[in-house]
Amino acid sequence: MTTDMEAKPNPVAAVADHGGSLERARALFPQAPEPWVDLSTGINPHSYPLFDLPATAFARLPEPARLDELAGQAAAAYGAPSSHCVVPAPGTQSLLAHIARLVAPGRARILGPTYAEHARVAALAGHRVEEVGDIAALEGADLGILVNPNNPDGRMTAREPIVDMAARMQGRGGLLVVDEAFMDVTSDTHSVAGDIGQGGLVVLRSFGKFFGLAGIRLGFALTAEPLAEKLKDELGPWAVSGPALEYGLKALGDSDWQRANRQRLEVDAARLDRLLAAAGLPQSTGTALFRFLRFAGAPALFDHLGRHGIMTRAFSAMPNALRIGLPGSESEWKRLAAALESYRGEPHE
Amino acid sequence: MTTDMEAKPNPVAAVADHGGSLERARALFPQAPEPWVDLSTGINPHSYPLFDLPATAFARLPEPARLDELAGQAAAAYGAPSSHCVVPAPGTQSLLAHIARLVAPGRARILGPTYAEHARVAALAGHRVEEVGDIAALEGADLGILVNPNNPDGRMTAREPIVDMAARMQGRGGLLVVDEAFMDVTSDTHSVAGDIGQGGLVVLRSFGKFFGLAGIRLGFALTAEPLAEKLKDELGPWAVSGPALEYGLKALGDSDWQRANRQRLEVDAARLDRLLAAAGLPQSTGTALFRFLRFAGAPALFDHLGRHGIMTRAFSAMPNALRIGLPGSESEWKRLAAALESYRGEPHE
Repeated sequence: MTTDMEAKPNPVAAVADHGGSLERARALFPQAPEPWVDLSTGINPHSYPLFDLPATAFARLPEPARLDELAGQAAAAYGAPSSHCVVPAPGTQSLLAHIARLVAPGRARILGPTYAEHARVAALAGHRVEEVGDIAALEGADLGILVNPNNPDGRMTAREPIVDMAARMQGRGGLLVVDEAFMDVTSDTHSVAGDIGQGGLVVLRSFGKFFGLAGIRLGFALTAEPLAEKLKDELGPWAVSGPALEYGLKALGDSDWQRANRQRLEVDAARLDRLLAAAGLPQSTGTALFRFLRFAGAPALFDHLGRHGIMTRAFSAMPNALRIGLPGSESEWKRLAAALESYRGEPHE
Repeated sequence: MTTDMEAKPNPVAAVADHGGSLERARALFPQAPEPWVDLSTGINPHSYPLFDLPATAFARLPEPARLDELAGQAAAAYGAPSSHCVVPAPGTQSLLAHIARLVAPGRARILGPTYAEHARVAALAGHRVEEVGDIAALEGADLGILVNPNNPDGRMTAREPIVDMAARMQGRGGLLVVDEAFMDVTSDTHSVAGDIGQGGLVVLRSFGKFFGLAGIRLGFALTAEPLAEKLKDELGPWAVSGPALEYGLKALGDSDWQRANRQRLEVDAARLDRLLAAAGLPQSTGTALFRFLRFAGAPALFDHLGRHGIMTRAFSAMPNALRIGLPGSESEWKRLAAALESYRGEPHE
């Protein structure tokens, strides 16, 4: 740990957020050089190409028929049985409170450690929340939640145990939620989107991360038709904005862009891993949209990069962990390389 | 009633919707001339001028500090005591289910007839729903709801009785929701946005109607801070999209545009009233964003205008009523005038 680090209050504790805020980065590191390199999220830095939207996308209420089209496009892209199983929403975040209330308040078990919003929202819905370390431990829960691949460590759970667990939980009146927010960048064989027809299963898919369009707020719940209808009833009409509708339709149907970007992200993630290794850091885990490090020097590295204007993601509940997103431009890659180089040169514990 | 009307199944029964869908208009009147003149909503046809959005509004997660700025702008525009009382959301529709759950399932009373979503969502939250015809009848309810000015008939309830009722309901543990979706186009003196500090009161303000930007999905709940915090907790982070954030900030701060458009809408509503009167129709009520007719010939007029490619809003629960929005361009005004002229020439009951 650097002397500089010891002299200031623990910056990690102040970052009980979800990343992606340059305001917070500036508040933590007011002396850092601008512009900031924001590696604090797992959002694709190469966003789907922006295009001109028709004025009606802003002015008029979104057409119900166009929303059905989007649901069909999402079903095809994610491998869900039909458009009737798809619930389009302004980001999966907006669905969490409604999903947590699909079962009466009881016991929620979450495969952790993972994205903190799941525990927060389950508790808000009246559930007693427990974090468990093994998928088998979800069985007795009324509401089971797992993130696959997991955020932030990238842990992957195979399809079969998930499908089995959903069936067992359903037999006891429970519901299994599988948050596949980062599934786009992995082999599709682990997604359970195709298994929702069996019931007892809700799959969450995020649009903004892989397509690099987090600002438009678009996400989907995939679930058997009766539960999908319930969720649509909660959201009511016009849940998805006109701009989100247009981008969703175009990008989800663009398999060329998707294929090319899956490849690019894999190449970039490997490049990031090489940089981290060259700086003497331990082997990372994660997904192609972010890398995850767990080692005693994580707070010092967070601090070092922050002072160089590079924001990464620290975790108040895991002080020895750091998540690092992908740089976008070559100048961002160079700044990260230089900062890691100087980090290597400093004395560490 | 025209012979043509009697020959086909009642088209009004098929329009159990909220207006604004040209797909539905085309399905009902497949022979109608294009383009459609959509007068089926109460959305300002002269939308706030579109402007170029920064790429970051689409790509990045919306900054929490920018959302706070929007809350402050909304507080100033609507006359709420502070930004902490403002809950920005992707349309007020998305707030209804959360608001209905701020009180335990009990008795919901709605001053009706009014916007149908309030009753639907209150029932969904487990309330026994009753429609009442007088504000005094709200008193015994756990959840009271009134729309002011009312949609579709424009009935206005004065500020003082509302504030009194909220206080009385709060004394019994109840909550009063005042949907001010169309308050922008009336004298501000009837808004209770400034009274939310007393508690027991939630005010809904819609952004898309007055600013003519229904597609971006933006609306606000205004309520005392403890309830505002609860609603924000339900929505979670990033509830409002980047495009909605940018438009909200600019348009809510643009008092010149607001003043000019309030005047224009009043002029246009008076012009619409003159057209209706010239066609021998009864005196209308409503707001400056829509006019409302209640007379036996309403289904025939809906049908006549529909066959001329002009979509208005019929109500399955009020077959003798029709709501007519404002034409936008001069060519739309001309088509409406011509259609009303030929309606006048037809034999009516």
